[in-house]
Amino acid sequence: MDHKEKHLASSAMLTDIVIGMSDGLTVPFALAAGLSGAVSSTGIIIIAGIAEIAAGSIAMGLGGYLAGRTATDHYNSELKREYEEVELVPEKEKEEVRGFFENLGLSEEVQQKAVEDIARDKKKWVDFMMKYELGLDKPDPKRATKSALNIGLSYAVGGLVPLSPYFFIDTPVEALKLSAIVTLICLFVFGYFKSRMTGVSPWAGALKVMLIGAVAASAAFGVAKIFEG
Amino acid sequence: MDHKEKHLASSAMLTDIVIGMSDGLTVPFALAAGLSGAVSSTGIIIIAGIAEIAAGSIAMGLGGYLAGRTATDHYNSELKREYEEVELVPEKEKEEVRGFFENLGLSEEVQQKAVEDIARDKKKWVDFMMKYELGLDKPDPKRATKSALNIGLSYAVGGLVPLSPYFFIDTPVEALKLSAIVTLICLFVFGYFKSRMTGVSPWAGALKVMLIGAVAASAAFGVAKIFEG
Repeated sequence: MDHKEKHLASSAMLTDIVIGMSDGLTVPFALAAGLSGAVSSTGIIIIAGIAEIAAGSIAMGLGGYLAGRTATDHYNSELKREYEEVELVPEKEKEEVRGFFENLGLSEEVQQKAVEDIARDKKKWVDFMMKYELGLDKPDPKRATKSALNIGLSYAVGGLVPLSPYFFIDTPVEALKLSAIVTLICLFVFGYFKSRMTGVSPWAGALKVMLIGAVAASAAFGVAKIFEG
Repeated sequence: MDHKEKHLASSAMLTDIVIGMSDGLTVPFALAAGLSGAVSSTGIIIIAGIAEIAAGSIAMGLGGYLAGRTATDHYNSELKREYEEVELVPEKEKEEVRGFFENLGLSEEVQQKAVEDIARDKKKWVDFMMKYELGLDKPDPKRATKSALNIGLSYAVGGLVPLSPYFFIDTPVEALKLSAIVTLICLFVFGYFKSRMTGVSPWAGALKVMLIGAVAASAAFGVAKIFEG
C-alpha cells in the first residue's frame, strides 16, 4: 500500500526535529514578543529568551528521555505479569484471546481454533496479550534517548530564530517586527512539513501552525502589557 | 484483569491535568530561576513569567486542539481510502488480512476462515484494516477539545506556583528560594501521581520529575548568569 509506505518513509528523526523546532519557535517567540511590549532594553529579552530556551529544551528533552525509560519499565513489568498469568490462570487468558477474535467478528469455530493456535506457543501468546489486550508495543529504549536529544536540540535551534533579531537591534519593538516576520515564515514552513508527514493538507496545516504562534505571541504581548501597567 | 481496570480507572481528565501542571511547574519555574540570577527587580520576572505562562498554555492547549483535529481529518481520509480499496482491490486487501493472522501464528486453515469471516461485512472489514493494518484508533474530536482546555488551564495554574513568591518578595534571589521549595514539592507530588497512573514505582517517578525541574532551573540560572556578564 503506497500510503502505508509513505508513512514509514517519513523518518522518525525528521519528526522529532519538526516537533522540537516548531515548539521552540513558538514559545520563545511569544515570550520575546511579550517582553518587547513591556521593557525598554533588549538585553533583558535576550537573557529571558536564553533562560527559556535552556529550560524548555531540558524539560522537553530530559522529560522525553525519562518518559521513554518509564514506558520501557512499564512494558517489562506488564510482560512479567502476563507470563505469570498465562502460567497461573491459562483458561482465563484463553477466554480473553477468544474475546478478541469474537470482537473481530469471527465465527465461534474459528475463534476456538485461533485460540488453540495462539496458546500453543507461550511467547507468542504473551506477545499477543501485550499487544492486543493491553495495547502495548515493545518500546525501543535507544529510540527514546535519540528522540530526546533530537527534540531538545531542535527546540534550542528553533528558539534561537525568534531571539536572533534582539542580538542586532537595540529597540525591543523594532526587533520584534523582524522576529515576527522571520518566525512566522519558519512556523509556516515547519507547519507545512509537519502536516505532510501526517498526510493532511499541508497548506492548511502550515497556516494553523503559524496561527498558533501568532496567537500565543499576541496573548503574551497583551498580558505582559497589562502587568507592566 | 485488575491491572487493566486500574488503567481505565485513571481518568483521562486527571492525566491531562497532571501533564499540563507538571510542565507548567517546570518551565516557568526554570525561567524565573534563570532571571533571578540575572536581574535585580522582581517586576521583570513577573512580567516574563506571565508572558511565558500565556505563551506556554496557548501553545500547549491550542497545539493540542489542532493536533486532535488533524488526527480526526487524517483518520477520515484514510477511512475513505480503505473503503475504496476494499471495493477496488478486494483480493489484495484480503491478502493483507490473511497476513495479519499469519503473523499471529494461526494455521493456514484458520487464517483462511478468519479472512472470510471478516470480509463478509464491509464495515467490519474496513474497521479491521484501520485498526490493525494502519494502527489507527477512531479519534474522539470532543476529547481533543476538552483535553486541550484541561492541559492549557493546568499549565497556567501550574505556572503560577513558581511565580507566586515573586509577587510578595522584592529580592529576586530570596523569592527564588521560596519558589524552589514550593515548586520542587509540587513537582514531587505530581511526579508521584503521574507515575502511579502508568503503574511504575511512584517514589522513583516523583524523584525523576523533581529532578528534571531542578536541572532545568539550574541550567537556566547558569545560562542567564553567563549572558548577563
